[in-house]
Amino acid sequence: MAIIIPLKKPHEPRHDALAALTALVADDLVATNQIIVQRMESQVPLIPQLASHIIAAGGKRLRPVLALAAARLCNYQGQRQRKLAAAVELLHTATLLHDDVVDASELRRGLPSANALYGNQPSILVGDFLFSRAFQLMVEDGSIDVLRILATATAIIAEGEVLQLSAKNDSATSEQTYLEIVRAKTAELFAAACRVGAVIAARPAAEEEALRTFGLNLGIAFQIIDDVLDYDAQQETLGKSIGDDFHEGKITLPVILAIHRGSEAERAFFKRTLSDQIQRDGDLAHALDIMRRHEALLDSVERAKHYGAIARDSLGLFPDSTIKAALLDVVDFTIQRGF
Amino acid sequence: MAIIIPLKKPHEPRHDALAALTALVADDLVATNQIIVQRMESQVPLIPQLASHIIAAGGKRLRPVLALAAARLCNYQGQRQRKLAAAVELLHTATLLHDDVVDASELRRGLPSANALYGNQPSILVGDFLFSRAFQLMVEDGSIDVLRILATATAIIAEGEVLQLSAKNDSATSEQTYLEIVRAKTAELFAAACRVGAVIAARPAAEEEALRTFGLNLGIAFQIIDDVLDYDAQQETLGKSIGDDFHEGKITLPVILAIHRGSEAERAFFKRTLSDQIQRDGDLAHALDIMRRHEALLDSVERAKHYGAIARDSLGLFPDSTIKAALLDVVDFTIQRGF
Repeated sequence: MAIIIPLKKPHEPRHDALAALTALVADDLVATNQIIVQRMESQVPLIPQLASHIIAAGGKRLRPVLALAAARLCNYQGQRQRKLAAAVELLHTATLLHDDVVDASELRRGLPSANALYGNQPSILVGDFLFSRAFQLMVEDGSIDVLRILATATAIIAEGEVLQLSAKNDSATSEQTYLEIVRAKTAELFAAACRVGAVIAARPAAEEEALRTFGLNLGIAFQIIDDVLDYDAQQETLGKSIGDDFHEGKITLPVILAIHRGSEAERAFFKRTLSDQIQRDGDLAHALDIMRRHEALLDSVERAKHYGAIARDSLGLFPDSTIKAALLDVVDFTIQRGF
Repeated sequence: MAIIIPLKKPHEPRHDALAALTALVADDLVATNQIIVQRMESQVPLIPQLASHIIAAGGKRLRPVLALAAARLCNYQGQRQRKLAAAVELLHTATLLHDDVVDASELRRGLPSANALYGNQPSILVGDFLFSRAFQLMVEDGSIDVLRILATATAIIAEGEVLQLSAKNDSATSEQTYLEIVRAKTAELFAAACRVGAVIAARPAAEEEALRTFGLNLGIAFQIIDDVLDYDAQQETLGKSIGDDFHEGKITLPVILAIHRGSEAERAFFKRTLSDQIQRDGDLAHALDIMRRHEALLDSVERAKHYGAIARDSLGLFPDSTIKAALLDVVDFTIQRGF
């Protein structure tokens, strides 16, 4: 069974807007990657071993690329963005390590997760180490404003993770709670990464706000689409697994829409499979069937488009440029990726 | 069986020097405690629930008291020490939460640990939250120097925790590695807490260094004595359990001395019980017997006295005062506590 979401014509050649944006900041990203590798060094061999596994594991470096691109958009001429982009990626990596322990994930980007390979204990502690290293980088940068933005973002991320844990397997989770979780655990770091670009370039408050808005709404759209892709059968044709969220009982937007629009029987089905975690053969197919009936995936994408539109409009006050066009393309690409 | 370490005459009334020092900074400590309670608030109810459990659980507030006392010693007249002492305690609490998960500890200060009560997942995430809150407090304080000191300390703590994990159950651990672990995971935060007092008072570098030396060496002495007390039978008469480290296979100084001084058979005994974790009835008593034979506990206390002496001498360049006398008393008390 396949849920076809015709966002673009079949066989239309796919333009990878993220790769294009990354190419525009390639020189900075090389430097950022060097800083990341250098800062995960330690006399304790287990630290670089474990850290390099997760940091090298095929990540797209989306957050640092956004930080670098935001600085470029603000016409920043120095090199501070390189260290700060590294700090953002280290913060992100620290949360991934802890997330995978909390979720008992065995895979991360198709490879064994750090906790699966090295165990939970070093994953927790190396996460703490990378977190501290990120703050050391920010301290070296020396800006209290930047420190405030990133320290606040990390507190909100941690708060969002706890909220997500509290809502876990609760099929009564509202769309509002879902959005609050997504905003906290994903979008705030996107927002902080983009905002920092304006801060170091000493741009006016309106531009800082515009970049914060851009990152926040791009981040929300990004996470919604991530959650849709977990139910998108076309992913299977691309060799990616689907249904992980379903098997874990994660309450994501497609499920919430299906539950809200569903019959009593359909609601009972989601309560059994997701809240009570009683799953049988054929349940995933049945879930997809209910979602299709209620256009839950299609309308999740519509919701993502809304946040994408806010992100796009927020860049309106920047003059046209190659980097601005590339950032706008990334918004569309984020929503269309995988389709 | 009891190992009697006659550090002081029996029945000599015990003067609680830590209580005396705490009384001297009581007004600041009340304010610090208010800040701690205020900063563990969150809209996500699980966060203050879990955080208040560990923060209220009978902690002595040793690190914040040291930070407050150091500021007093430096004749600091403002109130910045209150927030920073709270930040230090939040950092410490975050590491306790993660430690208890890593060690699968069921008890903390005689009460069920947070992970035992709430599970590992929220303990990890609330630890991250408190860590972020600590950095937010430092950012509010606004001093990059203070941020540098505490960010560096947290990176060293995390490094020390990973080193400890790598050395876990390794009966070949050297005294040097033990000292490096103790320094990193315990003493660096004592050092940072004391040093911050001099930094905010804008005292000369020599005083900052003196307070760093004081905290570092007090911290090493403190941890060594903690490790001795885990084998001290007099603790049993005080209603405290002994042998936890032995049952977990922790390689602490008393064990290292016993192994280094022991016969082949005694070394094999520690390898079986601690490295291979094969323990039988009577093994703890036998371990205590070996330690007594080689004066391992007594000489561990001697080692602690060495670090205590360095701590005491480091305060020499401060003029005599009530607070200085109280800090010196705490060094002696740290070494004598429990005996």
